[in-house]
Amino acid sequence: MNTAHETCVNRRFTEKEGSDPNMAKKIKGLAMLKIGEIGWIEKDAPECGPLDAIVKPLAVAPCSSDVHTVWEGALGERTDMILGHEAVGEVVEVGSLVKEFKPGDRVIVPAITPDWMSEEAQAGFAMHSGGMLAGWKFSNFKDGVFGELFHVNEADGNLALLSDSIPVAEATMLSDMVPTGFQAAELAEIEFGDTVCCIGIGPVGLMAVAGSNMMGASHILAVGSRQVCVDAARGYGATDIINYKDGDIVDQVFEKTDGKGVDKVCIAGGDVHTMEQAVKMVKPGGIISNVNYLGSGEHVFIPRVEWGCGMAHKAIQGGLMLGGRRRMEKLASLVEVGKLDLSPLLTHRYRGFDKLEEALLLMKDKPRDLIKPVVVIEE
Amino acid sequence: MNTAHETCVNRRFTEKEGSDPNMAKKIKGLAMLKIGEIGWIEKDAPECGPLDAIVKPLAVAPCSSDVHTVWEGALGERTDMILGHEAVGEVVEVGSLVKEFKPGDRVIVPAITPDWMSEEAQAGFAMHSGGMLAGWKFSNFKDGVFGELFHVNEADGNLALLSDSIPVAEATMLSDMVPTGFQAAELAEIEFGDTVCCIGIGPVGLMAVAGSNMMGASHILAVGSRQVCVDAARGYGATDIINYKDGDIVDQVFEKTDGKGVDKVCIAGGDVHTMEQAVKMVKPGGIISNVNYLGSGEHVFIPRVEWGCGMAHKAIQGGLMLGGRRRMEKLASLVEVGKLDLSPLLTHRYRGFDKLEEALLLMKDKPRDLIKPVVVIEE
Amino acid sequence: MNTAHETCVNRRFTEKEGSDPNMAKKIKGLAMLKIGEIGWIEKDAPECGPLDAIVKPLAVAPCSSDVHTVWEGALGERTDMILGHEAVGEVVEVGSLVKEFKPGDRVIVPAITPDWMSEEAQAGFAMHSGGMLAGWKFSNFKDGVFGELFHVNEADGNLALLSDSIPVAEATMLSDMVPTGFQAAELAEIEFGDTVCCIGIGPVGLMAVAGSNMMGASHILAVGSRQVCVDAARGYGATDIINYKDGDIVDQVFEKTDGKGVDKVCIAGGDVHTMEQAVKMVKPGGIISNVNYLGSGEHVFIPRVEWGCGMAHKAIQGGLMLGGRRRMEKLASLVEVGKLDLSPLLTHRYRGFDKLEEALLLMKDKPRDLIKPVVVIEE
Amino acid sequence: MNTAHETCVNRRFTEKEGSDPNMAKKIKGLAMLKIGEIGWIEKDAPECGPLDAIVKPLAVAPCSSDVHTVWEGALGERTDMILGHEAVGEVVEVGSLVKEFKPGDRVIVPAITPDWMSEEAQAGFAMHSGGMLAGWKFSNFKDGVFGELFHVNEADGNLALLSDSIPVAEATMLSDMVPTGFQAAELAEIEFGDTVCCIGIGPVGLMAVAGSNMMGASHILAVGSRQVCVDAARGYGATDIINYKDGDIVDQVFEKTDGKGVDKVCIAGGDVHTMEQAVKMVKPGGIISNVNYLGSGEHVFIPRVEWGCGMAHKAIQGGLMLGGRRRMEKLASLVEVGKLDLSPLLTHRYRGFDKLEEALLLMKDKPRDLIKPVVVIEE
Repeated sequence: MNTAHETCVNRRFTEKEGSDPNMAKKIKGLAMLKIGEIGWIEKDAPECGPLDAIVKPLAVAPCSSDVHTVWEGALGERTDMILGHEAVGEVVEVGSLVKEFKPGDRVIVPAITPDWMSEEAQAGFAMHSGGMLAGWKFSNFKDGVFGELFHVNEADGNLALLSDSIPVAEATMLSDMVPTGFQAAELAEIEFGDTVCCIGIGPVGLMAVAGSNMMGASHILAVGSRQVCVDAARGYGATDIINYKDGDIVDQVFEKTDGKGVDKVCIAGGDVHTMEQAVKMVKPGGIISNVNYLGSGEHVFIPRVEWGCGMAHKAIQGGLMLGGRRRMEKLASLVEVGKLDLSPLLTHRYRGFDKLEEALLLMKDKPRDLIKPVVVIEE
Repeated sequence: MNTAHETCVNRRFTEKEGSDPNMAKKIKGLAMLKIGEIGWIEKDAPECGPLDAIVKPLAVAPCSSDVHTVWEGALGERTDMILGHEAVGEVVEVGSLVKEFKPGDRVIVPAITPDWMSEEAQAGFAMHSGGMLAGWKFSNFKDGVFGELFHVNEADGNLALLSDSIPVAEATMLSDMVPTGFQAAELAEIEFGDTVCCIGIGPVGLMAVAGSNMMGASHILAVGSRQVCVDAARGYGATDIINYKDGDIVDQVFEKTDGKGVDKVCIAGGDVHTMEQAVKMVKPGGIISNVNYLGSGEHVFIPRVEWGCGMAHKAIQGGLMLGGRRRMEKLASLVEVGKLDLSPLLTHRYRGFDKLEEALLLMKDKPRDLIKPVVVIEE
Repeated sequence: MNTAHETCVNRRFTEKEGSDPNMAKKIKGLAMLKIGEIGWIEKDAPECGPLDAIVKPLAVAPCSSDVHTVWEGALGERTDMILGHEAVGEVVEVGSLVKEFKPGDRVIVPAITPDWMSEEAQAGFAMHSGGMLAGWKFSNFKDGVFGELFHVNEADGNLALLSDSIPVAEATMLSDMVPTGFQAAELAEIEFGDTVCCIGIGPVGLMAVAGSNMMGASHILAVGSRQVCVDAARGYGATDIINYKDGDIVDQVFEKTDGKGVDKVCIAGGDVHTMEQAVKMVKPGGIISNVNYLGSGEHVFIPRVEWGCGMAHKAIQGGLMLGGRRRMEKLASLVEVGKLDLSPLLTHRYRGFDKLEEALLLMKDKPRDLIKPVVVIEE
Repeated sequence: MNTAHETCVNRRFTEKEGSDPNMAKKIKGLAMLKIGEIGWIEKDAPECGPLDAIVKPLAVAPCSSDVHTVWEGALGERTDMILGHEAVGEVVEVGSLVKEFKPGDRVIVPAITPDWMSEEAQAGFAMHSGGMLAGWKFSNFKDGVFGELFHVNEADGNLALLSDSIPVAEATMLSDMVPTGFQAAELAEIEFGDTVCCIGIGPVGLMAVAGSNMMGASHILAVGSRQVCVDAARGYGATDIINYKDGDIVDQVFEKTDGKGVDKVCIAGGDVHTMEQAVKMVKPGGIISNVNYLGSGEHVFIPRVEWGCGMAHKAIQGGLMLGGRRRMEKLASLVEVGKLDLSPLLTHRYRGFDKLEEALLLMKDKPRDLIKPVVVIEE
C-alpha cells in the first residue's frame, strides 16, 4: 500500500508538516487509554490507501456509546484508541482510486463505514460487512474521529458531500443519531395511521419519534421522563407521553389505546427486559424494532404467552444503522429542505477542539437538561 | 339467527332425521371430557347460521395440538368439547347467504376459520381476528371436526373445493400441516440459494423443509433423529441431517457451513430454548421463523451477544397458519399438479369413524415410526 | 332476504314513514338520468340485508368521476342511477348480522365497499372483489350517496366510526381523496429522502403530495398550474412547482434534479401519454404509481428506450384506493391528531341537500379557484 | 494505475510472454468488426488495475445478445470489440487490493460486473451503476470474454469461486441465463400455488420457468413452439404448453384457467406488443415481469381498458439480471446440491477456442433444435 500511498493527493499535509518528509506526521486526539480512563494522546497520522480519504473534523459529537466503551468496557479492553464516531469534516487527502471526493470537500462522515464489495453489502446488510456489526469501525477497530485527522475507508462509498445549507453542528447528527433513530422506524415498517410506542427519548429515541412521524404514524406514545426530552418529543411528533414513574408502561399504553395496544414499537432505550414490555403492548401482527445497544445481560426476554406461544405474528427486529453515501445524502436532503430540524437535539454547544473532553464528560454525567452535546471545531 | 336458519338449504338433514322437526338432531363425537380424559359423547347437532356451513367429515387427522389440549391442558380446562381441527368433508347444509358452496360439495376445511370482515383480516392477519390466535376455533372455542357433523363459520371465505384428483387422506394434510409448515418458509422469506436450517422434522417441520425447498433453498439442514422423519426430510429437499444426539446442533451447523452459519432458520420443534440455538446459528441479516406452539416456560430466550447486542438484523418472526379459501386452493393446486406429494406424511392409515380414538392415542404415544396418522371415514 | 330484512333494527324509518308498512318508502336523490343528463328523482328506499346498513348522508362531495360518469359516459350508459360516492353519514338501520354499528352511529363511508370474504380480499386486493374494480359499487353498479338514504354492503367491514373531532365536511375527503392520493404514495413506496414528482395537483394529486411527504420524501416536485392548487401543494409538502406551461415537464424535472431525475413518480392527472413522461423522468430502480382514472385512448405508452429496453427496473403500478373499516380509521386518525389538515381542499362549501346539483355542476365547470366542493347536509 | 499494475501478481504472463517486458502482450479474440461483421482480431492484453482481475476463459457461451449486437446493431456501432459475456474462467492475475481471489482460482464470471461503491449499488440496483444498464460492461463498453484473456473490474465483488462439482460447460449458464431467467420469477414475486404464464421458452425463458417452479408456482403455462424447448420446459416445471400457432395466446390462457387468467406473467420473449398480451391475461393484483431485451419499436404498449383504466393493480416490472459474487454463489449452490440441472439447456457443445465462431453463427442461425451452444476451451 506504500507505493500507492505516495501517489495520494496530499497538499495540505506537506504544507503543514514542513520540510522533512521522512519524519512521521503526528496528530493529537482524545483517546481511551484503557477501560475507565481517557486522555489526550499523540499518534502517527493515519495513512491513506488508494480507496481511502483522510479527513479533518469540522464538528464532532460524543455519543453514549463512547461512554459505554470507556467506562463500561462495552467493547472489551482498548488501549490508546482515539474515540468518537460522529463527525463532519473536510477532506485533506484522497487515495489514487477515489473519484468522487477531493481535498477541500466538506463531508458527512457516517459512524458506520462498510466494505461495499463484501458479500454482506451485496445482501443489503453492509453494516455487517466483515462480520456482525463490523461495519462499525471508528473507535471500535480503529481510531475514531476525535483526532486532528482521521481515516475513512472506501471514501467513494462512505462519505457524503455536506451542503452549505446545513450548519456543521446540526450535520453531526447525521452521522449516527438520525440514521439510527430512523432505522428504528424503518425496521418497524411504520404505515399511515399507525399507533407507535417509542421507548426511550434520548437523541436516538427522538429520531425514532421523528422517523415514525415522517413515515405516517398518527398516535406516537413516547416513553420518557426528562422535560427537555419530552418537549423535543412533542416537537418531533409524539402525541402522548408515558412516564415510567407513573406506573407500568404497558398498563399505561393499554389505557391510552382503549385496551388495544399499539401497532408498532420502537425500542431506543432500556435494557434486556424492555423487549418484554414491547411484546406485551404490541398487537398481533405488529412489529417491534430495536436500535438500543444492549450492553449487559445474558438473554433478551420474550414473554411466551403474550408472544402467542410463538404464533402471534409479533415480529422482532433489531439492527445497526445503515451507512453509505446514498443513505447519508438522502437523510441530509430532509434537513436541507427544512423537513427535519436537528437543532432541538443540540442542547449543549462547545467551540474548539480542546472542548472535546468537557463535552464527553458531560455525556458521561448526563445532566437532566442534556440531549446531545456538540463540539464545533471550525465552520 | 333462528329465522334465517330455517331458510337454510337442508335436504340431507330432513331426510336423515325423519319426521319430528322439533326433536333436536344429535351427533356423536370424540371429545375432551376434561383435562387428561377423552371419550365419545353425544351432542346436539350444530346449527347453521346464514353465512355458515354444516359439514360431514370424510377424512380427519389427529394433531399433536389435540394431544397438548387434552393431556397437557394447553388451552386450559375444556369440558365435553369435540376435538380435531384437520379434516376434509362434504357440505350437508349451507346458510342463506352462502353463495359459493352447496350441499354435496367436497371441501377442504382449514384448521383456522377467521372472521373475514374483521379489522385483523383487513390488516392481513385474519388468524388473529377477534383476538390473538382467535382465528383458531375448532377444538378451541367450539367443537372440532371429530364429530359426525361440524360447523364452519363464514363458509364462503373459509372452505375450499376439494379436487377429485386429491385423495381425502392426503387432503387432510392441507388443513394444518401444509399451511403451518409452509408459513415457516414464508415467514423466513427463503430466497434462491439460501442455506436453511429446519429445526424439527415432525409433520410440520417436514412441510417447513418442503416449503423451504419449494421457495428455492439450496442447502437445507434438517434437525431430527427418527429414521422415518429423516427419510421423509431427504425426500422433501433436505440436503443434510443434523442429529442432536451427535452433539450441539449449533456446532454441527457451523461445521457443515464452514463456520458461516445459515441464512434462515425455521423452527418447528423444540421448546423455549430452541430460539437461542436459532439466533446463534443464523447469519447477521438472517431471519428466524417459528411455527412451533410453545407450550410452557415463562420466556423465550434470545442470546444477547449473538443477537449483536440488539443490532445484528437477525429478525425473529412466529405465527399461526393462514386460513382462507384462496390459500387452501393455492396450496391444494400444488398437490393437484403433482409438485407436492403428501403421502410420505401418512405413515398410519385407519378406516372408519370409530378408529378415531385409536388414531388419537397413537398420536399421544408417538411411536418412532409415526409421522402422521389419518382416519378415512368415507372416500 | 326479505325475512331477514324485517328483523332489522329500524326505528327511524318507522317513525318517519308513518302507519302503512306495506307502502314502499320513497327517497329523493340526484341522479344520472342518462349519459349527459342529471336530475332529481324519487326511488324506493334501499333495503337492508342481514350484513348491511342503511345510511343517511350528513355531508357529501361530488367527484370528477361523477362528471366523467355523466358527461363522458365513462362507465357506459346508466339510467336513473343516483350519483355520488363520497360521504359521511348517520346509520339509520343495520342488518341482523351487523355487530359493530347501530342506528345513530356517525360513519365515514368509503367510496369502495368490497366483499370481504372474496378471494380477491384474501389476496389483499379487496377493491377488485367480484372482478376488476368491482369493489367500487356506489354510482357504478348501484345507487350512490346523493340520495336521502343509501345502502352499504357488509357494514362491519366497510364503515368506520367518525370521531366527533373531525367536522363532517372535512371527513368527506376520507371517502376517496385521501385514500386515493395516499395510495399513490404507497404504491410508489416512498422512502426517507426520496425525490418525488407528483404529476397533477387536483385534490387527489394534493393528497399524493401530502402522502409522499408523510412517508418521508424530501424534494417533492409538483406539476400543476392553478394558483389555488399550487398554494395547497406547498402547504402539503411540495418543495418545487413545475408548470407545464413553462416547457416540457421532463426537461424541467431534469433541470431541477441536476440531470439525475427522480426516485419516484406519482401520477394523479394527465392522460395515457403521461406515463411516457413519468418513465423518462424516473431513475433506474425507481417506481411510478398511477391513481389517475384513464378515461380514453387504446393504450398507455411506455417509451421503450427510456424504459431501458425493458430492463431498467422502472416499476409501474396503478391501482384503485383501498377500502375497509381499518383503513378508514387509520387515515382518519391522522386527521384526529392534527397531522393531516383537509380544510385546504375544501374551496367551496355548500349547505343543504338541495345544493348538491349546484356543487356537482361546479365540479363540471371546474373554475380556476376550485379544488373541491362539499355539501354539508346536517352537522 | 501503472505503478499499481506492476505490483500485480503476474506469474503466468511473465512465463508465457518471455523476456521483453516492454513489448506489449497480445491476445486473440473473436470480435465485432463493425455492425454486421465479425472476425478474429489481435489486441493488446488487458491491464489489471488494483481492484481487478485478468481471467482466461475455460468455457464460454454465445448469447442472442451477441447476435443482436453484431447483426442488428442493438448497441449502436462498435469497432473491433471482442464479443461475449458468458464465461467461466481461471484467474491469471489480480490487482494489489484484491483479497478474495488469486491466480489459479476457477471462477464464474457474471455478465454484469457493477461498481459496488456506487450510489446505485447502495440502492440495490448495482446493475445500473454508472447509468441505466451500465453494469453490463462486457461486449458493451469494453472487450468481452471471447478473448484469450479478459478483464474483470472489482474482482472481489464480481467474481465467484466455481465449485469442482459443476462442469465448466454447465457453469457458463450461471453467467447470464440463470440469473436473468430467475430474475423474471423474482420480479414477478411468485408465491406458493401461483398460476404463472412464461412467455418465451428460449434459454432465458426456460430459466424463468425453472425459477417460477422453484419459487412455488403450481400451474406454469409456457408459451413456445419448438419441441426441444417444450420438452425442456416440461422438465423445468411447466404444466401446460401454449403454442401461438394454435391461436391467440390470451384466449388460450383464459381457456386453460377457466376464464380466470393468471396470477403472474414472466416475459422472456416476443416484442413490444407482448406486454399487451401479458396485461390482458393477468388477474387484477397480479404482476408482470419482463427480462426480454426489447430491441425495436418506439413504445411498449399497455392496453388501457384491461389495465383497469390505470387502476387494476397489475404491476409491471422489468430488469436486467443481478450480478455480484454473493448472487453467483447462491445460484451456483442450487446446481451443486443437484436442485438445478443445467444440462438440458446445452443442446450444442463445442470443444476448443477456435470453435467460437461456429458456435456464434449457430446462435445467429437458431436451428429448431437449438437451445444454447457452449464452447469448452479447457476443463
